[in-house]
Amino acid sequence: MLILGLDPSLSSTGWGVLRVDGVRIAHVAHGQIATDAKAPMAQRLAALHAGIADVIALHRPHRAAAEEVFLNTNPQSTLKLAQARGCVLAACGAAGLTVNEHAARLVKKAVVGTGGAEKTQVQAMLKVLLPGVAITGADAADALAVAIADAHLGAHPGRRG
Amino acid sequence: MLILGLDPSLSSTGWGVLRVDGVRIAHVAHGQIATDAKAPMAQRLAALHAGIADVIALHRPHRAAAEEVFLNTNPQSTLKLAQARGCVLAACGAAGLTVNEHAARLVKKAVVGTGGAEKTQVQAMLKVLLPGVAITGADAADALAVAIADAHLGAHPGRRG
Repeated sequence: MLILGLDPSLSSTGWGVLRVDGVRIAHVAHGQIATDAKAPMAQRLAALHAGIADVIALHRPHRAAAEEVFLNTNPQSTLKLAQARGCVLAACGAAGLTVNEHAARLVKKAVVGTGGAEKTQVQAMLKVLLPGVAITGADAADALAVAIADAHLGAHPGRRG
Repeated sequence: MLILGLDPSLSSTGWGVLRVDGVRIAHVAHGQIATDAKAPMAQRLAALHAGIADVIALHRPHRAAAEEVFLNTNPQSTLKLAQARGCVLAACGAAGLTVNEHAARLVKKAVVGTGGAEKTQVQAMLKVLLPGVAITGADAADALAVAIADAHLGAHPGRRG
């Protein structure tokens, strides 16, 4: 079973693919899709969609997972994030993938053991859970964390997008 | 010059294509892409993206236009709308289209002559501006309205998406 973890954002969308075999989890690949802040919005969104479609075509995951969206108090930030997220989910949907959504608290709990864990604790635990993997980029790390959480929680997803 | 007007929403995205030749505006086609409310979010967003990509491939517009997004006070509504909008913009971006964004007030002003016009006034004026066209669906009507506005305002777009 291959799981694609996703951390969508307009400037840089993180992704990570894990292979899950029972309780064993192995790293397959990870990366970030950055968009050109000077490009028009439609082109940036198209780049995100195409980038995730490429990742899916290359790694052929069986399902995908993302954190439940954080609704920023700034509506313009929510708009940007949600537009990017929509493109990423659409690329998954076009490939027939289900996207499980997990609350940030449950992701931290699955990775670190406590829902109130700090970002640095999550990153430290990723090194333990995925030994020997040089994780480049905070967005990719977040994507791998949600993939790990999905490996644990996938049978009981909170929501499906 | 062919202009694609868009009214994105998750449940039903309206679109309309107009041919603009100087001050003459002619209707080419319009329609709505409805998504299955029971389908997972990723599949609904993929359907919107594919539907708009099909419209673009068929009609080959030169540019696109949409109203500036209305930021609902309900964050969940903003999230749904923005995710749908992201997919629609991405389909435009992938086809190399610029998407001009116009304030709702300016769209009404361009169509009816006053920024405070009611929806019914906009729809009545569409019948005058596009004689003989049976416009099916409120979302398609909104899309045609923004395309008409873009024909007038396009040279001075407010924002580009």
